Amino acid sequence: MSDPRFGQNRRITLPGPLRLDGGALLSPLDIAYETYGTLNGDASNAVLVCHALTGDQYVASNHPVTGKPGWWTRMIGPDKPIDPARDFVICANVLGSCMGSSGPASINPATGRAWGMAFPVITIRDMVRAQAMLLDHLGVRRLKAVVGGSMGGMQALSWAATFPERVAAAVIIASTARHSAQNIAFHEVGRQAIMADPNWRGGDYYDGAPPAAGLAVARMAAHITYLSEAGLTEKFGRRLQAREAKSFGFDADFQVESYLRYQGLSFTDRFDANAYLYITRALDYFDLAEEHGGTLANAFRDGATRFCLVSFDTDWLYPTRESRVIVQALHAAGAAASFVELSSPFGHDAFLLDSPELNRVVDGFLKTGAPR
Amino acid sequence: MSDPRFGQNRRITLPGPLRLDGGALLSPLDIAYETYGTLNGDASNAVLVCHALTGDQYVASNHPVTGKPGWWTRMIGPDKPIDPARDFVICANVLGSCMGSSGPASINPATGRAWGMAFPVITIRDMVRAQAMLLDHLGVRRLKAVVGGSMGGMQALSWAATFPERVAAAVIIASTARHSAQNIAFHEVGRQAIMADPNWRGGDYYDGAPPAAGLAVARMAAHITYLSEAGLTEKFGRRLQAREAKSFGFDADFQVESYLRYQGLSFTDRFDANAYLYITRALDYFDLAEEHGGTLANAFRDGATRFCLVSFDTDWLYPTRESRVIVQALHAAGAAASFVELSSPFGHDAFLLDSPELNRVVDGFLKTGAPR
Repeated sequence: MSDPRFGQNRRITLPGPLRLDGGALLSPLDIAYETYGTLNGDASNAVLVCHALTGDQYVASNHPVTGKPGWWTRMIGPDKPIDPARDFVICANVLGSCMGSSGPASINPATGRAWGMAFPVITIRDMVRAQAMLLDHLGVRRLKAVVGGSMGGMQALSWAATFPERVAAAVIIASTARHSAQNIAFHEVGRQAIMADPNWRGGDYYDGAPPAAGLAVARMAAHITYLSEAGLTEKFGRRLQAREAKSFGFDADFQVESYLRYQGLSFTDRFDANAYLYITRALDYFDLAEEHGGTLANAFRDGATRFCLVSFDTDWLYPTRESRVIVQALHAAGAAASFVELSSPFGHDAFLLDSPELNRVVDGFLKTGAPR
Repeated sequence: MSDPRFGQNRRITLPGPLRLDGGALLSPLDIAYETYGTLNGDASNAVLVCHALTGDQYVASNHPVTGKPGWWTRMIGPDKPIDPARDFVICANVLGSCMGSSGPASINPATGRAWGMAFPVITIRDMVRAQAMLLDHLGVRRLKAVVGGSMGGMQALSWAATFPERVAAAVIIASTARHSAQNIAFHEVGRQAIMADPNWRGGDYYDGAPPAAGLAVARMAAHITYLSEAGLTEKFGRRLQAREAKSFGFDADFQVESYLRYQGLSFTDRFDANAYLYITRALDYFDLAEEHGGTLANAFRDGATRFCLVSFDTDWLYPTRESRVIVQALHAAGAAASFVELSSPFGHDAFLLDSPELNRVVDGFLKTGAPR
């Protein structure tokens, strides 16, 4: 395919303006994205994949910083539920992030310097509106499906609520229709850790050392919420790290300490602290019912979208009951919705891991939930 | 009573040495403590109350810094399960803490300056050994009961395992026989937050500004684990703090954010960051089975202590299953043990809150579990 809009490592600057939920107009608007496969003649085979908080557009290609394989190659690829041989797959870096789409690390055209905290606060719906502009650019009017886990699932919900006529099917995995007090609390710990780092300097650190220590602590705290207690016990228990006995010191005696420290440190190589602030804020602001008069079902009354919801039994970040709330609202709205709770020892992270059951559910849904 | 050993706001310097689990000898040894009530003629009415991570000896008297009532006046007082009219109540600041007992903020006699990170790493059993020295000083050979919640419960367990002949009864509330990988993980986040604060300076901050920002983040992360998800939702939900609408900024929009920030900040007024490092380390090192050949029941084989265990159904820090593990070990060891799981919406913190059921259980146990 020679169309320069399609392929990997794409980046487009759209004139906008994008009117944000907070009232600001964002213009221009950068969107970094990848596509896989070929858009068919009637543009009916497009599948939009939405990424989670610290995800990116490299869903099925190697990450440019870490060199690691795409974060959802288990779901996207030959003979996978989303198959570029059949589907035209789109994945875009969300608004507010740091992998090429407009965010606090982008250059503010008004000043010629990075936005920092002058970047407007954004919402999940703003991310979706930006993606809609990208779809316009790509010539995709209606999605065969929008698919996402965690924050990606929130975007999928918001897509169906905001542009019901553009979404034939939505797959929402390990997600929620609103952030709970506990969800907000964990994010607030992370934000305070970043802001407490003297290198943060009110977000104006792009000319110097970034607040890596604070960002690492934020990542560590969040990472615990991605894993189940039982999964942590199975993976690490109280096993010591490369030693026979406790050190009676403050080294990482336990494997779980060493693991967490590594998770925190390695994250700072690939993520921007301000972007972490902005995206966690968008997550905490997410309350789909609130956007629709306080009744979640109202978000889905006008649509013909078919929904598939999946939760994991050990996910305590967005537990199964949050998916049930969504399913009940969908049924109240008269929407077609299927729901399955899968068993996994791995907590919230299960949506990113090998899961034949998850693949079977998504594959089955996408094949029967094709565009109508 | 005119005996200067007894009363409130006591502090004793014992010559020691105290041989610590890590191998060091600590000498001298300061212990700050309070007693309430009168030791009877045969010294058979002594009840030792053990405090939790951030607790102190002010169990039933006003805190000298905050001015707030003692942290367990619900359990200790006239007509309470532990009644100074009947019981001689002892509560000592744990070794490693910062309210007058020896810890990293104490003066190292070898240097004339605060110990800082030169203070030896301590264990729960070391705390208990220090308390045993205090009991010797007070003329208490055998306890009517040792009572504690959370880390206080670990000390009560360690008391029964280390000095079985000195403990007639033990009450262990909302506790565990060992720290799980998840418990360790949360503490490691807190420690990394403190150590990432440039004011920490390797623990040598007593001549300057303390690492308050790091300590506040540590407290915030820990505080979430003390509350249940349902409790947080009931208490705060997504309610906004003193505003009608979201700010689209990074202020504490949500009540739960404001609450957490306050919890973090106010904690730094009364607690030492290094003490937090040392006590969390002691907690993470706690594994009572490991101290007894890997079999928890072995910890209790030689004793005649009667045990009472209480858990709370929404406590996810030390869930009910951890108490069950202890009860099974006690039964395997042939020990007398009663166990009750109480229902509460408040998670781990429930042991500190008004709970008529908890008081009834402890009262009944202490009355039937009197010294034999």
